[in-house]
Amino acid sequence: MPTRQKPEQAFRILLVEDDPAHAELLRRGLEPQIHGYNLQHLTNGEAALDYLFRRGPYSQDPNSPRPHLILLDLRLPRLDGLEVLQHIKQSTELRRIPVVILTTSSAERDVAQAYDRHANSYLVKPVEFAQLRELLQAVGHYWSSVNYFPWP
Amino acid sequence: MPTRQKPEQAFRILLVEDDPAHAELLRRGLEPQIHGYNLQHLTNGEAALDYLFRRGPYSQDPNSPRPHLILLDLRLPRLDGLEVLQHIKQSTELRRIPVVILTTSSAERDVAQAYDRHANSYLVKPVEFAQLRELLQAVGHYWSSVNYFPWP
Repeated sequence: MPTRQKPEQAFRILLVEDDPAHAELLRRGLEPQIHGYNLQHLTNGEAALDYLFRRGPYSQDPNSPRPHLILLDLRLPRLDGLEVLQHIKQSTELRRIPVVILTTSSAERDVAQAYDRHANSYLVKPVEFAQLRELLQAVGHYWSSVNYFPWP
Repeated sequence: MPTRQKPEQAFRILLVEDDPAHAELLRRGLEPQIHGYNLQHLTNGEAALDYLFRRGPYSQDPNSPRPHLILLDLRLPRLDGLEVLQHIKQSTELRRIPVVILTTSSAERDVAQAYDRHANSYLVKPVEFAQLRELLQAVGHYWSSVNYFPWP
């Protein structure tokens, strides 16, 4: 399967999710899919943008590696997921990073607004863990092993 | 697995690919993955935009259904794949449609330019058919059964 990742390089995921139970389920579901991956978990939209733009508490390391994938919840404290998405996709520095929306909302309006703001993909969290695991299996495989990235 | 497609509705793919041998391989590789899918195959960039914007030979049916997914080659006659991508993603009418680049080029410049123009994903065609089939399996599953769309 073609990929730009060198095998010795960890696949880096930024997870922006305020619900600790959801975050734990996602971490557990992704682990078996992506060997040796590196998960950065942040719980609000403001922290996500600080991290990505290397501001505030994240300004010490101006060369910290970019995530290969951002998993972004929509309902977030401080700054809404759609706003975070818009900031990322309007930034020439960040817009190449694939952003996958991962939310409980299947409202048509949310889906449409996410695509309008150039979300790369939109996924709805299933309620059942078995189904969530299946979804994360597909997500992990597709984005870490099939998709190409603009950087290693 | 969550999806906005009703089971009785065919998953519609627009394939823009000028190489007939590649197109045939893609058709054959996708068939077992997506049951009852509908493939529209066009061979140049201009025809792809005419089809999507319902112009010229495609102006008769102003309500023809939008594709759920566009598989877009980069090297295309008449209008280059990157230009086609840009027209799609600058259109408020079309930009919600996921566009997956499917090309033989793994040049860093192509990957970067595609993401800059808001490609939803970038894939490189493997040379071996067995690998291509594996890639199409992941593509078919992810986009037709896992991803949500802004319309049915």
